[in-house]
Amino acid sequence: MSRWEAGARERLVVGAVDLFAEHGYDATTVTQIAERAGVTKSTFFRHFSDKRELLVAGQETLSRLLALGIAEAPGNASPLEAVAAGLQRASGAMGLRSLDLAQRLKAAVAASAELQERDALKSVSFAAAMTTALIARGVPDSTAAIAAELGVLAFKRGFAEWSQGDRSTADDLARHALAALDELRAASATLR
Amino acid sequence: MSRWEAGARERLVVGAVDLFAEHGYDATTVTQIAERAGVTKSTFFRHFSDKRELLVAGQETLSRLLALGIAEAPGNASPLEAVAAGLQRASGAMGLRSLDLAQRLKAAVAASAELQERDALKSVSFAAAMTTALIARGVPDSTAAIAAELGVLAFKRGFAEWSQGDRSTADDLARHALAALDELRAASATLR
Repeated sequence: MSRWEAGARERLVVGAVDLFAEHGYDATTVTQIAERAGVTKSTFFRHFSDKRELLVAGQETLSRLLALGIAEAPGNASPLEAVAAGLQRASGAMGLRSLDLAQRLKAAVAASAELQERDALKSVSFAAAMTTALIARGVPDSTAAIAAELGVLAFKRGFAEWSQGDRSTADDLARHALAALDELRAASATLR
Repeated sequence: MSRWEAGARERLVVGAVDLFAEHGYDATTVTQIAERAGVTKSTFFRHFSDKRELLVAGQETLSRLLALGIAEAPGNASPLEAVAAGLQRASGAMGLRSLDLAQRLKAAVAASAELQERDALKSVSFAAAMTTALIARGVPDSTAAIAAELGVLAFKRGFAEWSQGDRSTADDLARHALAALDELRAASATLR
């Protein structure tokens, strides 16, 4: 794969998100996305089967990293400590370029009901990935399900704060997510 | 509205769910749904704007009842006691006919990727409705979010057990959901 070709995937994602923000998700075609990225339609289809898959791709990567961080946490880590490790692993993948993309994506989501639904589904797939990873560590089902939901809430809150920030704090997603998890842990202790 | 007309909405829902199970959600048309229910297409459109809305309608009713139960819980009820009241309120609306429908819907969901996404979205809208209702009671944001997620998990688990049951236990959705909530409450106390 040439260097130009290797950058194609990223250009396709960035171009698509811009087009979604400009014209809405429904009105954007694969042809337009390929043109914006400066590649042919067949290059698009080498990377993604359709425009929906283009959005799902990033989501699946994050689900995988959340689960990986949980799997790699020390054996004696508590369920929430394992969730914190998952948040750190997934946050680590999101730097400056992700911040740009997150801010563009936010505008696109605000403009499309279909993207709002996709966004809601993201939470569900993150929760499922973390629950499965926790159960694989021997955490009982109910505890795993709750710890995963706290993880999703923490990731969403951390992400919302991070994506409002500027480029100087682009590396701080993990910090925001872990602070949110701490707050949720404290709140869950008050439940009765 | 004649009695026949008053029953049309329910016949449309039952007919649609059967058709989704038989042919898949995507392949089912509004014309087929109206025919199965023995009404005209214009009657369909008096009740629903499209086949998607037909599915969302039941979900919105449940969200409203979950929130109503929380709002009507005694002032001194804890967040989880209020959630339990919400589960009871929503469960009360689901009797024998809902059990039939739930079992048909399960087959339809198993057959359609789009319905599986809808099903996932349901959790998100239940959580949002309960979180908002808890915050309106003065429950702090984080506590409200966690209590609502426990409520959603409990409702889903209770519903899964209930919909596997037979007609003799059709009134037992509340019992299943409250037992699940108790189990989740105990599990959350073990988090650290």
